Amino acid sequence: MPDLDRMGVTAEALAQMANTPDPRMREIMAAAIRHLHDFAREVDLKPDEWLAGIAFLTAVGQACTPFRQEFILLSDVLGLSRLVNVMHDAEGREAAGTETSLLGPFFREKAPEFQAGESIAATDKGGEEIILFGQVTDAEGKPLPGAEIDIWQVDATGLYDLQANDAEHMDMRGRFRTDAAGRFHMRTVKPMGYSIPMDGPVGQFVQRQNRHGMRPGHIHILVQAPGYRELVTALYMADDRNIDSDTVFGVSQSLVVMPEKGLPDAPRSDLPAIRYDFRLSRLAAGETGGRVGADPSQILPAAQ
Amino acid sequence: MPDLDRMGVTAEALAQMANTPDPRMREIMAAAIRHLHDFAREVDLKPDEWLAGIAFLTAVGQACTPFRQEFILLSDVLGLSRLVNVMHDAEGREAAGTETSLLGPFFREKAPEFQAGESIAATDKGGEEIILFGQVTDAEGKPLPGAEIDIWQVDATGLYDLQANDAEHMDMRGRFRTDAAGRFHMRTVKPMGYSIPMDGPVGQFVQRQNRHGMRPGHIHILVQAPGYRELVTALYMADDRNIDSDTVFGVSQSLVVMPEKGLPDAPRSDLPAIRYDFRLSRLAAGETGGRVGADPSQILPAAQ
Repeated sequence: MPDLDRMGVTAEALAQMANTPDPRMREIMAAAIRHLHDFAREVDLKPDEWLAGIAFLTAVGQACTPFRQEFILLSDVLGLSRLVNVMHDAEGREAAGTETSLLGPFFREKAPEFQAGESIAATDKGGEEIILFGQVTDAEGKPLPGAEIDIWQVDATGLYDLQANDAEHMDMRGRFRTDAAGRFHMRTVKPMGYSIPMDGPVGQFVQRQNRHGMRPGHIHILVQAPGYRELVTALYMADDRNIDSDTVFGVSQSLVVMPEKGLPDAPRSDLPAIRYDFRLSRLAAGETGGRVGADPSQILPAAQ
Repeated sequence: MPDLDRMGVTAEALAQMANTPDPRMREIMAAAIRHLHDFAREVDLKPDEWLAGIAFLTAVGQACTPFRQEFILLSDVLGLSRLVNVMHDAEGREAAGTETSLLGPFFREKAPEFQAGESIAATDKGGEEIILFGQVTDAEGKPLPGAEIDIWQVDATGLYDLQANDAEHMDMRGRFRTDAAGRFHMRTVKPMGYSIPMDGPVGQFVQRQNRHGMRPGHIHILVQAPGYRELVTALYMADDRNIDSDTVFGVSQSLVVMPEKGLPDAPRSDLPAIRYDFRLSRLAAGETGGRVGADPSQILPAAQ
């Protein structure tokens, strides 16, 4: 038995994990151990700091409910979600595919289906009504008829339907399909910026870092067509005051938009409109189309 | 707004945390971000792997109860607890202080008090009765009268009292005091090796790594005397089959012992005995005596 010094502990931990049957798990955990131990050595982590970390992670886990995924939120504010996103995006992506953004914790499967031109707002809660229209194509610009476009966003209260009291009722989300020319057209309201949930451990953590905790106003979008990589993205409002300091690092230049009247092909002239064309990358051989984030019900604890 | 590539995300995350008022929190989180992102880049972490990690950490947090700290267990099997321990030990430690070991999740404050020679076993559950005796001194060998020695261990069922059905009832733990010459003497049973809890997410994780999940038999010991650094250690049984592969990396050569009859100063000759002298280091100026681990009630969720 070796006496374990500060480097020896790492060697011993790696040795104990060396027989992991799954080679990818072995690789990931070996890297995780090295970086975790390097981190602890670099900052000379003290027992009370270690304990504070244990208490924090415990609180994050305990804050998860069927309607709230606090660990995804933590990953988001640490920039990890965006990093995984960026790497996934870069890998084998066709040059012209639309950039992706974070799925976030508020996506829900089976949102209501709408016809072209309809609004996803069930009731008028204020806010500026806008149009979102454009075309879904492949990376070379070939139109994709029948593609499904899921959109979801906060209403003028700054909350998602999942955060409202009646979480069973869906609002401000919907599914549209492209027409024979790959075109789509929908109405919604201009999304306002909002704070991440600040009443849990991650919110407290962000406050202790003097961060505003705000996301610039955005519309979440998921586009799917058979044979193409699922596109998870979002469109960000150019005039939001936090457009340059999204607390979850979701904004990309190519995803910043501004609703305006008088656009050439706008289906209506009485409302400000955003034109955005989505370009899907083909699935690579063997790829099933991983998604950064998922239906929260798959990873959340069951309702008590 | 910069477009974030795989390095840019890290820079942006560090920039958003740069105004953290607490300098130590700023330092720790900056290092954590760098190592976390380096890890993700090194293994090219995929969305589904990221999600599996989120689900795992969520399950670990949800497994914590007032009587179970699954995140400490995770830290233990990753070698992090031992590493923090080793670093704390090395820092300003006087040459001759006894080596430390992990506190573990089963320590409880206010264990029953015993007189010298009494047994911590409330009832006979089998197992080999043994004696533990010795002296508590400072690092130079000066005896410390009135030092408090807390010991706790599994009984012959391989469970701690906290793991038994009636968790309110304390057993196989107790507090002793040294006499005027710093001597102590207690009876217990030879501890058997045991498995970490395998019915939770950390147990499943260890099984997927083909690890046995066993700890060699050991007696936990906490020694306290005013003005000295609290000593958290354990004594490990030399003949345990897993003495060289403790799943939480707690064993040090200097802490391996073997009960035997016929020791020179043994207070009784009819039972096998372990003689162990504990040497305490003085508290450094300003040091309050951090403990690796703590009373679980301080960091566990409140009972529902």
